[in-house]
Amino acid sequence: MELTVETLMITTGGSRIALLSEESANLLGVHSSDRIKIKCNGQEMIAIANIAYHFPPNRIGLYEETVEALGVEEGEKVDVELAPLPESLFNIRAKLHGERLREQDLVAIVKDVVERHLSTVEISAFLTALSIHGLSMGETEALSRAMISTGKTLDFGKGPILDKHSVGGIPGDKTSMLIVPIVAAAGFTIPKTSSRAITSPAGTADRVETLCPVDLSIKEIKKVVAKTNGCLVWGGSLELAPADDLFIQVEYPLGIDPMLLPSILSKKKAIGATHVVIDIPTGMGAKIKTRTEAYTLASDFVDLGKRLGLNIQCALTFGEQPLGCGIGPALEAKEALETLMGGGPPDLREKALSLASMLFEMVGVEHPRGMAEDMINSGKAEKKMREIISAQGGNPAVKPEDIPVGPEKAVVRSERAGKVLWLSTNDIVRIAREAGAPKEKGAGVVLHAKLSGDVHKDSVLFEIYAERSSKLASALELAGQLSPIVLSKKPEEKMILDQIPEQGPHEKRFMLDR
Amino acid sequence: MELTVETLMITTGGSRIALLSEESANLLGVHSSDRIKIKCNGQEMIAIANIAYHFPPNRIGLYEETVEALGVEEGEKVDVELAPLPESLFNIRAKLHGERLREQDLVAIVKDVVERHLSTVEISAFLTALSIHGLSMGETEALSRAMISTGKTLDFGKGPILDKHSVGGIPGDKTSMLIVPIVAAAGFTIPKTSSRAITSPAGTADRVETLCPVDLSIKEIKKVVAKTNGCLVWGGSLELAPADDLFIQVEYPLGIDPMLLPSILSKKKAIGATHVVIDIPTGMGAKIKTRTEAYTLASDFVDLGKRLGLNIQCALTFGEQPLGCGIGPALEAKEALETLMGGGPPDLREKALSLASMLFEMVGVEHPRGMAEDMINSGKAEKKMREIISAQGGNPAVKPEDIPVGPEKAVVRSERAGKVLWLSTNDIVRIAREAGAPKEKGAGVVLHAKLSGDVHKDSVLFEIYAERSSKLASALELAGQLSPIVLSKKPEEKMILDQIPEQGPHEKRFMLDR
Repeated sequence: MELTVETLMITTGGSRIALLSEESANLLGVHSSDRIKIKCNGQEMIAIANIAYHFPPNRIGLYEETVEALGVEEGEKVDVELAPLPESLFNIRAKLHGERLREQDLVAIVKDVVERHLSTVEISAFLTALSIHGLSMGETEALSRAMISTGKTLDFGKGPILDKHSVGGIPGDKTSMLIVPIVAAAGFTIPKTSSRAITSPAGTADRVETLCPVDLSIKEIKKVVAKTNGCLVWGGSLELAPADDLFIQVEYPLGIDPMLLPSILSKKKAIGATHVVIDIPTGMGAKIKTRTEAYTLASDFVDLGKRLGLNIQCALTFGEQPLGCGIGPALEAKEALETLMGGGPPDLREKALSLASMLFEMVGVEHPRGMAEDMINSGKAEKKMREIISAQGGNPAVKPEDIPVGPEKAVVRSERAGKVLWLSTNDIVRIAREAGAPKEKGAGVVLHAKLSGDVHKDSVLFEIYAERSSKLASALELAGQLSPIVLSKKPEEKMILDQIPEQGPHEKRFMLDR
Repeated sequence: MELTVETLMITTGGSRIALLSEESANLLGVHSSDRIKIKCNGQEMIAIANIAYHFPPNRIGLYEETVEALGVEEGEKVDVELAPLPESLFNIRAKLHGERLREQDLVAIVKDVVERHLSTVEISAFLTALSIHGLSMGETEALSRAMISTGKTLDFGKGPILDKHSVGGIPGDKTSMLIVPIVAAAGFTIPKTSSRAITSPAGTADRVETLCPVDLSIKEIKKVVAKTNGCLVWGGSLELAPADDLFIQVEYPLGIDPMLLPSILSKKKAIGATHVVIDIPTGMGAKIKTRTEAYTLASDFVDLGKRLGLNIQCALTFGEQPLGCGIGPALEAKEALETLMGGGPPDLREKALSLASMLFEMVGVEHPRGMAEDMINSGKAEKKMREIISAQGGNPAVKPEDIPVGPEKAVVRSERAGKVLWLSTNDIVRIAREAGAPKEKGAGVVLHAKLSGDVHKDSVLFEIYAERSSKLASALELAGQLSPIVLSKKPEEKMILDQIPEQGPHEKRFMLDR
């Protein structure tokens, strides 16, 4: 059927969608969410059909992504027909029925996800089925390879290429901002890509962005790495394993994460990493709650790494409380810089040194811990960080106090004396986000009391920073409701952790960072 | 945040979607697929946010459904904020983890589906999880009640109100067109709503539409039933259990059907039925393949019926081949009318009489079979059908030969003599659809050979009807590839039913009719 293009000048956020009138859809035998094949000038493409009820019958409405992919203009004639269901949809249906998929089946699915032949309804069903039925290691490997091969890859020449990743869930974890300069200062290559926060108060990309631009092109990244051995950039627009970005969009509202392993390692492999340390924060306050879970995940990482030709070591790290004191992009960048300069909180310094040592050990450094410490103590890591900041377009002379934090500030004090018995990382995340983090980069929380710490009556438990007074007020109100830091003289004094039914409103669960 | 409305003049097919610029979304902390609350003139509503990349930052783009629901106009100012996640999403997440849901959880989900607070991604995950984990009978009951209470209901006064439903899967099943006039002619009320075909060559609504309008309002239906005791209308626009229509849109591409029981019985209950016969065609050519499956389904129907206060009887019917000879809307309407007039194929007559008798027996008729036969033999059923056709706005004097069938016709003949050993209903469906059914109402197939029938060399196996010669040609080509009717002198001559890997392209699986 020949239809005239109407360009809608609206983006859909990636999907290729075409609008048909009810009349045309009926004639073509197309139902809403069916696929249609659009042909024009020897080009053809598949789009998902939406049926509009007050749309001229001789026209086809194309959203911007579809216009671009097809290279058509307003008023052009295109030929439209019902497209057959993609083979990959039958693979998805098989997974719904609990079947194990072959490599070629998974390749077909990932390819059709990237080429937008599958709708979000279908991707959602696929991820739900994966989440419920689980994946075999063979499926995980095949998915990883498919995700790599459908995206771009980087090559930094001869290795080793080092990398570090945290599965996340611990607020205030700015370790990457220390490890990258430590490793790069020691002469090793570490091209670190990171994500922005979705459910947390700051992702590494958000933190680094308070110091320098992070949205670099692949060409720019290569230049930065050639100059400094490292980088700290946002991975979101690089099209490394782009299928994953589409999967995340669907997983996010569902709070599921069945693709964690292929998602992380496909990106590491795409950036050319050869040696990777995976940080698995473990504890009641983290995403991974128990050691059993953590060990299973770790051995899966190591196994998948072997299959993909990656050297992997995992670190189970203490995940009962935030790392360091600052939580929120600017507050964390400040703390990271202070730590590189020899100060900073001891838990952050220790974690960064330990993980960097693991990487050094993996590539055969004789005194790995000594080398890591030396990089900090000698000031080489700080110097390297400033080189990276400069190469990425920031001010290399930046001092910690230059990093702008929220001008609105409030202090929450203890009503009594005691020892910190436990603190709710989730509540602290909520307070930091209520204050404006991660979008308002100066917003967040600074902890003055941490586990086992002694607190006097009226001493500061934490500070809240915000960029707007209204945000400060609502964060402060939430802090009063939540009381995230629990004190006790004796542990047995406070045995009830929570009451059911709970008081506060539901909150989004953590997503593992990728 | 205050934004100015831009009405997009585009329908989404039901979803309430609002378009935000990337800038506004960032400021609001909204990610794609998050929900936003839009307030205006004391009204407020929830919409799903789509983020557009070239959209003015101070504007909000509203699709027609959203404009209508909110009652706003181009250029009006609205207040927009990030809405909390709906509670029902947490219920969906719980189902993803295999938890059993309580009645109030399911009510929340169905309510949010109908009010468009859940995205298709979320509905897809819910239905996938239901399909994999299954539903308890308690969940099934709660879902049914929730689906009834979120839609309209009809009341035809004092009962009994009779009804009949087939779970479908057998092409050519025009039994409802006989049962309704038989039952109505006997003085009982039978307000029958039906669906249109999605994956089959004809639904009852498509068939009846060749005789009279079927898209009646509730008020019109009441008038027709008051006059004639029965009706044969399309249920799609009546908003009886409207959640189901939204579920079907998502289930259709996935080929799953977890809501079959609540879907069917909520609609029966909403129309006020008290006594229902459910037809379960069973056989290799049907959706329900084995007697075990059929018995399980039947006992679930009876059980759910009891819980909802419905008298249910199920009939397992022969499902190895199409019912009657005509397949396609007009061809089937013609055959139904012929059967009401005393002719027609014996299997169709027999099935209609049996199911009508079951209904008569359920309401205490003394000689149920005799009464059903009498309604046909006396011509009362035919007369009743003509009354219904007239009341719905059709021509009551219509003769079978008046119903227009496709002018393009081809005959497929047997290359040899033999007995019909088996025939592929699925292949016949494909040929009928290729010829243009159900959209082109005169298109379809007429079978001249059925199971166990004797076929001579060169005698007609089936005819293909089409409205366009191009459709006829491609249906004929497909028929040549598929050879849906398999002949044999002795059964043991032909033992291979199919070869793997199979030759032809994949086809959509059947959906159960609702």
